[in-house]
Amino acid sequence: MTDDLTTLVTGLARRAKDASRVLANATTAQKNAVLRRAAEALRGEPGDRVIEANERDMAAAQQMGLSKAMLDRLDLDRKRLESVADGLDQVAGLPDPVGAVVEERVLDNGLRVGKMRAPLGLVGIIYESRPNVTADAASLCLKSGNAVLLRGGKEAFHSNTAIAEVFTQALAAEGLPPEAVTLLPTTDRQATLVMIGLDGILDMVIPRGGEGLIRFVAEHARVPVIQHYKGVCHVFVDGSADPEMALEIALNAKVQRPGVCNAMETLLVDAALAPTFLPKLGAAMDAKGVEIHADDRAAAHLNGVKSASEADWDTEYLDLILNVGVVDGIDAAIAHVAKHGSNHTEAIVTKDAAHADRWLREVDASLVLVNASTRFNDGFALGLGAEIGISTTKLHAYGPMGLAELCTLKWVGQGEGQVRQ
Amino acid sequence: MTDDLTTLVTGLARRAKDASRVLANATTAQKNAVLRRAAEALRGEPGDRVIEANERDMAAAQQMGLSKAMLDRLDLDRKRLESVADGLDQVAGLPDPVGAVVEERVLDNGLRVGKMRAPLGLVGIIYESRPNVTADAASLCLKSGNAVLLRGGKEAFHSNTAIAEVFTQALAAEGLPPEAVTLLPTTDRQATLVMIGLDGILDMVIPRGGEGLIRFVAEHARVPVIQHYKGVCHVFVDGSADPEMALEIALNAKVQRPGVCNAMETLLVDAALAPTFLPKLGAAMDAKGVEIHADDRAAAHLNGVKSASEADWDTEYLDLILNVGVVDGIDAAIAHVAKHGSNHTEAIVTKDAAHADRWLREVDASLVLVNASTRFNDGFALGLGAEIGISTTKLHAYGPMGLAELCTLKWVGQGEGQVRQ
Repeated sequence: MTDDLTTLVTGLARRAKDASRVLANATTAQKNAVLRRAAEALRGEPGDRVIEANERDMAAAQQMGLSKAMLDRLDLDRKRLESVADGLDQVAGLPDPVGAVVEERVLDNGLRVGKMRAPLGLVGIIYESRPNVTADAASLCLKSGNAVLLRGGKEAFHSNTAIAEVFTQALAAEGLPPEAVTLLPTTDRQATLVMIGLDGILDMVIPRGGEGLIRFVAEHARVPVIQHYKGVCHVFVDGSADPEMALEIALNAKVQRPGVCNAMETLLVDAALAPTFLPKLGAAMDAKGVEIHADDRAAAHLNGVKSASEADWDTEYLDLILNVGVVDGIDAAIAHVAKHGSNHTEAIVTKDAAHADRWLREVDASLVLVNASTRFNDGFALGLGAEIGISTTKLHAYGPMGLAELCTLKWVGQGEGQVRQ
Repeated sequence: MTDDLTTLVTGLARRAKDASRVLANATTAQKNAVLRRAAEALRGEPGDRVIEANERDMAAAQQMGLSKAMLDRLDLDRKRLESVADGLDQVAGLPDPVGAVVEERVLDNGLRVGKMRAPLGLVGIIYESRPNVTADAASLCLKSGNAVLLRGGKEAFHSNTAIAEVFTQALAAEGLPPEAVTLLPTTDRQATLVMIGLDGILDMVIPRGGEGLIRFVAEHARVPVIQHYKGVCHVFVDGSADPEMALEIALNAKVQRPGVCNAMETLLVDAALAPTFLPKLGAAMDAKGVEIHADDRAAAHLNGVKSASEADWDTEYLDLILNVGVVDGIDAAIAHVAKHGSNHTEAIVTKDAAHADRWLREVDASLVLVNASTRFNDGFALGLGAEIGISTTKLHAYGPMGLAELCTLKWVGQGEGQVRQ
């Protein structure tokens, strides 16, 4: 059984890798035509098949007693499918990263050198219940000239299969190898293990999902992993902060969309500002239905809050819950973030330019911010046009990954016969 | 024993990681002072201790019957030590990469965003017999604000220990934690295994050495590995090439320094040019003492050459040996390189702009060249000022790695109270 799985997964991956060599040299027009064709299909009859497949997944999920939140993630209706199709058209409209040359210069010997964006090859995506990831990931990989090997969640198996078929048909119709979008036909964990062991075939794997999935992949992979890990994001209200601005940023960071990784989980406030700022914060958060877990010093200025446990400071709630702590100045705030942060998004509210500068330099996170909401950490908000996720891995890409981050930069040099002295 | 080693290596790595947090915020002046102090020490009495330690290593190596080439790599005399010291001064003179902001722009909402270079943290270097790597790696990691965990070869153990001590003393003298340069006090392979398993402590590991070492590290590492792998580099003489230029580039690529990874191992020539070009190439290579292994079509135009075996096309000779093959046009040349190249350095000699463009785009190597010698693929020749090696890994850094490549790019944003709509 395991041997069969190994043969199956390795064979599919090899064919996808072969397809990646064709994709790498596909023209922008060809790649865009595939994306627009897939979008059109999702709006038409193949889209009906996706909806039908999703209904089967939903029925099974309800029988299995999945949570309401899980069911909502899994659900695909016409409106959601239309938004998936719009996403494909948007990716088609983005500039092609492949072949772009950056950092061009002429060396003293006349050799013109630069770095050219080139596809990575075969990208693996391992994800859980959202079937729209199938389309998002496929579109970004295709546009960046990569083939993609997808391993979706078992709850969404039929939906994913129907969506992947839309892509393989669009590829074939445009004369490109359909294997460039390959969905594993099994969600067996053993198959995932084989997939992430394909050193020399799979060029990168991105796990998208809960902590358990990411840890499993990081622990067992033999190929490079870009972790898109949890966001335990902080806002530090410095002693010099404008309290109005701090309150607005804190509210936005917590409540504008609490279920995402760039939402704030912990607010730290300088002791000097705590007596005046915290009562206002408490009232404003209470009005939005936010439950506060406070340390003792913060609790002294707040009404009806819970006491924060040690584990709370490391928790990604993804919910209307907020830790609040009082710290003695920026050093203590930076130390707290170094201990409890998850290298995701960290913001300071301050009027002190030296503190702003220290925060930007000393805090280790994929996005460090001064006087702005943590919610800005995504590829759309930062102007990438699209994103495959937000990397909390420091190598290769740190922060939102768009089309450029799905490429490598190879050196290119053009001479007139230069030799080394 | 294994438990003891695990405790030892993990403890040293943790202390080095703690030191990395201090190094990350050290000023440029502090870091340069450490490098200049270490250079001065190598020129003085501590340098004598390095030479003495090296004499012990050399004596033991001679007794163990190491090859002449190995002994030469291991040997450190005053002249070589002076050149190591000069290298440290040069690194001190390079711009500090840490804190530099690139790709700055202002978003529509007024948020000023960019990417700031920041150290990776703790970098691991695993290397073999050359003791100068200890100083090179330590200097580049320090300058880029990283701590370094070094595992040198057992032949150079005493030399490496003496060099590392120069750094720890220089760090302490400048008020920085000496653990920022940590040499493992054992060359036990089990200790290496522990080291490359330190996920969450070691941020990156670079194996430098032979194929066996690199494969061992790649196979067992639980931390990101940047492979500095072999160079099976090609020069393709296109049908439109200027034969004089092609000959000069081929000679330079093969004989200027045959023992390095960016030397040419295989020359491919378009069938149209073979009858006129190959006799001249053969004579020129023969005059330089180069042994040619040719395919049948090439052998028809060459005198006194060996027949190339299938394995030859994948061999990094690092010696005065050259494979020569005849191909039918650029497609066959690109296919040959895709099959036998090692993603290192690949050059075309051509007058055809379309062929030049195809070569640059379609060939997958860390440096692709038009009308220039493969020997240009190193950090010095490409203007990086220094290099820790040449990455053949596509993620993070592809090609020569200088100070910038020992850093990550974190996003930074500065606002005036912006929140997400």
